[in-house]
Amino acid sequence: MRTQYHENLQELAELLHAMCLRDRDVVAAATDALLSADLLESEAAIDLGREVEIMHQEAEREAVRLLALQAPVAGELRQVVTAIQLTGNLKRMAALATHIAAAARRRHPEFVVPEPARPVIAALGAAAVGIAGSAAAALASGDPEIAASLDQQDDTVDRLHERLLATVLDPDWSYGITTAVDITLLGRYYERFADNAVDVGRRTIFLATGETADRWIPTDRTGR
Amino acid sequence: MRTQYHENLQELAELLHAMCLRDRDVVAAATDALLSADLLESEAAIDLGREVEIMHQEAEREAVRLLALQAPVAGELRQVVTAIQLTGNLKRMAALATHIAAAARRRHPEFVVPEPARPVIAALGAAAVGIAGSAAAALASGDPEIAASLDQQDDTVDRLHERLLATVLDPDWSYGITTAVDITLLGRYYERFADNAVDVGRRTIFLATGETADRWIPTDRTGR
Repeated sequence: MRTQYHENLQELAELLHAMCLRDRDVVAAATDALLSADLLESEAAIDLGREVEIMHQEAEREAVRLLALQAPVAGELRQVVTAIQLTGNLKRMAALATHIAAAARRRHPEFVVPEPARPVIAALGAAAVGIAGSAAAALASGDPEIAASLDQQDDTVDRLHERLLATVLDPDWSYGITTAVDITLLGRYYERFADNAVDVGRRTIFLATGETADRWIPTDRTGR
Repeated sequence: MRTQYHENLQELAELLHAMCLRDRDVVAAATDALLSADLLESEAAIDLGREVEIMHQEAEREAVRLLALQAPVAGELRQVVTAIQLTGNLKRMAALATHIAAAARRRHPEFVVPEPARPVIAALGAAAVGIAGSAAAALASGDPEIAASLDQQDDTVDRLHERLLATVLDPDWSYGITTAVDITLLGRYYERFADNAVDVGRRTIFLATGETADRWIPTDRTGR
């Protein structure tokens, strides 16, 4: 029975890792759809997002089942409790990336992102793909150094987000209010996607070391 | 020892209830600060939000402690797991309301909200205060009917949110892009505040009945 139990713990960890990689795929497809005004790609991103939702239900159910049947203690209890929290972040990342894809679908065949904002959105998309990949690597390795690096990547996202808002607020902006509203929300989705990835890193540190992330990541970003 | 344990479970439930009432106070103070461009009120809201953050840490620590020491089963396990999830939603509500207060502080002594958007923001603030109060009532009573009513209140918030965006997108809008960006984000904060309150209701239903909320609330709002 203990062997089965440890296998189950391992499977739960693998499921979370797979969710994080899927989050990365959703935000990659959503950004492509946004920049190419590609309806099929936006729908593919939305479908991928739904898969994460199903994986989330599975992860939550499995974690509660392990708590109920195995009454884990110490490190294993930490692992299961953290899994419940992580799956919430990972689900949220998919939902935010899905919002990006939905914006592309809503405006199709028009482009959501006007010319001057395209480079920043492309960079935000690339940064989001990068941070989701790093979060997955942190989950797979439990390495606190990788997890802490997420915070630097998040700084990049924050800087890009500020640049995006500056683009919209530039006196030369000539794309109207509707586009400004779209771009403002898109910026917010990317920023929150990255914040949740940082949360994944923080929880991974807690899982690996039993310490809160404050030793590794100086500022608290989770409540942003 | 069992008596102590049940007291601890009760205290944890009371802490979550107090957090939810505090969330209500934060969004009330933040909305007042926003509509009156009141710097002191915005800082009071931000301070209240910090208190919720501290209560969140306490709730999370206590839930993990109970899992570790008591290895609860059945309904009590459900209660502790749900507490871990609820405290995440309740912390997020405070963070979102704090963003509203921070917008008021950032623009002080100017008003963030121009005349035509004031009634909708006032209504959104009132709806957010209402939904947080109902979430607290659902937590205190465990009554699935109250919890399900949160969903109707959320529909009101969604309609107000649409009206707010329509105000910004009206061809007669003459308050510029900066204000449009501010209002867009404020609308998003109120909407997400309400979504998290609905999540609190859904989890309360699960706690009270052991059923997922689907029987009571037809559509899934949690991933929005």
